[in-house]
Amino acid sequence: MTERVEGKLLIIGGAEDKKNECKILKRFVEESGGREARITVLTAATEYPLQVGTEYYSLFLQLGAKEVQVLDVSDRTQANRQGIEKEFEQSTGIFFTGGDQLRITGLLGGTLLGRKLQLLYENGIIIAGTSAGASVMSDTMIVGGEAGTAKKNTLSMAPGLGLLRSVVVDQHFAQRGRIGRLLSAISQNPYVLGVGIDEDTAILVQSDASFSVIGSNTVTVVDASTSTTTNVSETTPGQSLVLSPIVMHVLSEGYGFDLKQRVSKL
Amino acid sequence: MTERVEGKLLIIGGAEDKKNECKILKRFVEESGGREARITVLTAATEYPLQVGTEYYSLFLQLGAKEVQVLDVSDRTQANRQGIEKEFEQSTGIFFTGGDQLRITGLLGGTLLGRKLQLLYENGIIIAGTSAGASVMSDTMIVGGEAGTAKKNTLSMAPGLGLLRSVVVDQHFAQRGRIGRLLSAISQNPYVLGVGIDEDTAILVQSDASFSVIGSNTVTVVDASTSTTTNVSETTPGQSLVLSPIVMHVLSEGYGFDLKQRVSKL
Repeated sequence: MTERVEGKLLIIGGAEDKKNECKILKRFVEESGGREARITVLTAATEYPLQVGTEYYSLFLQLGAKEVQVLDVSDRTQANRQGIEKEFEQSTGIFFTGGDQLRITGLLGGTLLGRKLQLLYENGIIIAGTSAGASVMSDTMIVGGEAGTAKKNTLSMAPGLGLLRSVVVDQHFAQRGRIGRLLSAISQNPYVLGVGIDEDTAILVQSDASFSVIGSNTVTVVDASTSTTTNVSETTPGQSLVLSPIVMHVLSEGYGFDLKQRVSKL
Repeated sequence: MTERVEGKLLIIGGAEDKKNECKILKRFVEESGGREARITVLTAATEYPLQVGTEYYSLFLQLGAKEVQVLDVSDRTQANRQGIEKEFEQSTGIFFTGGDQLRITGLLGGTLLGRKLQLLYENGIIIAGTSAGASVMSDTMIVGGEAGTAKKNTLSMAPGLGLLRSVVVDQHFAQRGRIGRLLSAISQNPYVLGVGIDEDTAILVQSDASFSVIGSNTVTVVDASTSTTTNVSETTPGQSLVLSPIVMHVLSEGYGFDLKQRVSKL
């Protein structure tokens, strides 16, 4: 069995700098080809596609992209319309805005547009997403759950786009106090790694499943595959979680992580 | 060298239930001797000693204590006044209210009252503290620091009462999103264990340095003694933290932890 070629993912924890250095968005343009970059902004997540789309459109042009287009779909019919895949098949970078992650998967999952995205990724382009657009990257995504104490089985999860395997991503991570809900998520299947990405911070995932951190805050990786003690299989939902021991990694710019070996790296 | 006998500590993450089952406060009364309990409430931490003292006074009597007294000191002269140690030498339980941890250590540290407390603890009584009264238990305590992303060397620490060794306690833990600041604290000396206690949750520390969890939420233990990668010794303060790998334990009622072996237990 040969592993198929895959592209890169730039997964952003939301609220990335758009006014000053724009380090993360600039990196996205560079990884998309710099002055040769042809970027498609997908606004499916947001209920304000015009406003959000226009902002990224201007930003990516300012940051040096050759072409930028905003592609909005507000229902599945549009995402399935004949020829839609041609509208972005020349793209070298795809960018998912924030909003509601269920809008992305609900509108695109299983459509022509969704399948073309997967194909482009497998052929090696970069796909980026911020906030809700970050959550959708994984096989299973968090769609809702309270901040605060880790409780058993109180968070909502749903199938994501599946571009990043065996990982659950959470965003706005430290800013919204979400470690409890990320731990709840991975406790349900400790094989899955939890990756919590702070605001104005991103991971750039390479095709070898290693990532580097970009931006001003931290990325937290939680690995419960080592855990021997848990109360998850007991029957009371809403009970406070027990999960021990967990391995955690706190990383910031200049550092990275190997998702296969589950170790941090420079 | 023989280890000296020591008492128990009940370290409460703040906002413990005072209206319904009062599980944590009830346990404190039981550990203090139940119907034979003679409790001293120390209100040094708070600027509202009358109000806070009266509330705990009533509660502990309702919960079955034999005697309760409230002892307030508002300056070091009072904490050093002749005979003050006699006022509570019959106590079987001492309770520190919340407020400001620096008031506790600033008012009591090195005084007659402070030394008598230490002696009573070494002779085996139980000392409890909630919120600020929890933070003061350790050798070094956190006195200030923002919630959110773990940053290097931006939090304020000060010497605590030193009843619990090689540990840093943080309180209102999940409710105020404090994992970042607890990690910052332990990154400065990874020998020290971080113990984050949620609201309405407590650890009961036995003289063998093991603890059990009581209450409705969780206790998070972070152990960075295993870490091999960090940026703490680099020179830029305020930079986002790197610390990897860390071992973490999330525990709730019915579970406990051995602070010497650094493993969770039932």
